[in-house]
Amino acid sequence: MGKKYAVGVDLGGTKIATGIVDQDGKLLDQVVCDTDAKEGSDAVLERMAQSVKILLERQNAKPEDVLGIGVCSPGPLERETGLVLFAPNLGWKNVYLGPILQEKTGITTYVENDANAAALAEKWFGAGRGVENMVYITVSTGVGSGIIINDRLYAGTHGTAGEVGHIVIEGDGPLCGCGQRGCLESLASGTAIARMAKEALQAGAESVIRDLVEGDLDAISAKVVGEAAKQGDKVAQEVLDKAFYYLSLGVVNVLNLFDPEVVVIGGGVSKLGDMLFTPVIEQVRKKAVAGPREKTRIVPAALGVDAGMLGACSLVLDVTKTQSF
Amino acid sequence: MGKKYAVGVDLGGTKIATGIVDQDGKLLDQVVCDTDAKEGSDAVLERMAQSVKILLERQNAKPEDVLGIGVCSPGPLERETGLVLFAPNLGWKNVYLGPILQEKTGITTYVENDANAAALAEKWFGAGRGVENMVYITVSTGVGSGIIINDRLYAGTHGTAGEVGHIVIEGDGPLCGCGQRGCLESLASGTAIARMAKEALQAGAESVIRDLVEGDLDAISAKVVGEAAKQGDKVAQEVLDKAFYYLSLGVVNVLNLFDPEVVVIGGGVSKLGDMLFTPVIEQVRKKAVAGPREKTRIVPAALGVDAGMLGACSLVLDVTKTQSF
Repeated sequence: MGKKYAVGVDLGGTKIATGIVDQDGKLLDQVVCDTDAKEGSDAVLERMAQSVKILLERQNAKPEDVLGIGVCSPGPLERETGLVLFAPNLGWKNVYLGPILQEKTGITTYVENDANAAALAEKWFGAGRGVENMVYITVSTGVGSGIIINDRLYAGTHGTAGEVGHIVIEGDGPLCGCGQRGCLESLASGTAIARMAKEALQAGAESVIRDLVEGDLDAISAKVVGEAAKQGDKVAQEVLDKAFYYLSLGVVNVLNLFDPEVVVIGGGVSKLGDMLFTPVIEQVRKKAVAGPREKTRIVPAALGVDAGMLGACSLVLDVTKTQSF
Repeated sequence: MGKKYAVGVDLGGTKIATGIVDQDGKLLDQVVCDTDAKEGSDAVLERMAQSVKILLERQNAKPEDVLGIGVCSPGPLERETGLVLFAPNLGWKNVYLGPILQEKTGITTYVENDANAAALAEKWFGAGRGVENMVYITVSTGVGSGIIINDRLYAGTHGTAGEVGHIVIEGDGPLCGCGQRGCLESLASGTAIARMAKEALQAGAESVIRDLVEGDLDAISAKVVGEAAKQGDKVAQEVLDKAFYYLSLGVVNVLNLFDPEVVVIGGGVSKLGDMLFTPVIEQVRKKAVAGPREKTRIVPAALGVDAGMLGACSLVLDVTKTQSF
């Protein structure tokens, strides 16, 4: 009798979602509880451990039946040691998430960041099923990515591969949060879209955006800009055209370097749907190198709120792929 | 008794260099002959087959002792079928190099392009020995690269991974040979360096470059610009500053996406040495994301004229890595 299960925990600022899958990645059960981060990191880790225990009991399983626990965690972290360096929405600084949860449960624990976990989730459960080489790009407040190469997550030598948000697209572009100029994130993220719209309105442009936010320009978001564009607003459309032009250059660069079978685009801004995908695909079909230009599919993420938890489960399946159950 | 040897052939416009290595990659013997492409593709392929036979005889080996022949070939090619689509310096169009050489020798034959072969050569014999994740960038007439991930060549889904010359660095940059604007190749290749210098001189700039080419502006090359810069020429230095600034952005993008242990830079322009490496390393240490920013080494290629032949040998060692001798 070998190990039969993998457990995944999505540690969010408000909720902890925990799921259990079998070795084929079939979701068997899940449980959700509040994070209550204000009670401190040990209380949060205890609730994560309890969630794992509940799922094991319901499967009539023991810790030794579980191949591992994957945790999708916010904040910059060290994958190898399981240390979360900094997670502002949890109030955490230097918490050894991996080792502590492993001690509490007796199960080997792996920790991964959001973008890599979402990439794994799409590969195992979503838009990247059956694909060997895939890049997942998330466009929301920031721009990030997770890379699958030869069927496995590729995290890089120092765990930072896939920082697509910080590839330079415009040498003299706007200042990015990272301190550099012209990064993709400073040109095409939700934050960049909101900023560009705000700047246009501050410069006096006429736009329904002003009505949608009732004059409060700080309330402008990518969603509001999308809403306005849907209503035929010119200013909003110009902002989106610009952002998605830069996003398409980012996708072209990804195609030219990785030559993946599929690029999956997720994150809040991707919910604008065709408004994003139509111009991006059009540019990619013109500008990428022959091969990926015609053949690489550019598709929306298939998973919703479950992506983190499923990604955490698939992290275990990915890490242990070469091992036998 | 298993297979003990791998053979590599570097097919160039003027010479064919063929080598034989043992399973540890130790070079045992080599032979060089003229290409004489004007005699037609079959004559060239016959000379390649003869070179292989000579090396086998000298080792007292039979075709069945050889794991494979690797060929480093010019021109766009199909790796899977061994078809060379187009090789202007050989006068070739649609030549099935792989299958024909395989039939002539009775040995499985693999075909690869220059940049990927050079990357493999540096990984097995040069500056990337012992490294798991590496990007080799060649800066010469064009800009290309070969990618090593998890100890193996990563060629992509359609065989086009590593087209670093065609990542967009400057959305509104100069027109590239590929039809797009602002590709790295249009900003930082040897061709780009020569073009920028020529433009400056045509605009009337005073520069020793004019003397070095005896007034023939079409004779300006990156080498001449480097020569002039060494003599303290301001125009030449400005051109190099600009080109290597863009090259550094390309290297930053490679670090942010691949997070490799080492970036090896080769090709004719890399022979400018510190004039190239000093500014590129300086920018990378400022602009890449934390991790690779401090830790990824940026080093010159270690191999010279042998790179193609050694790369062709290592292609066999790479492809058959999971097989046993």
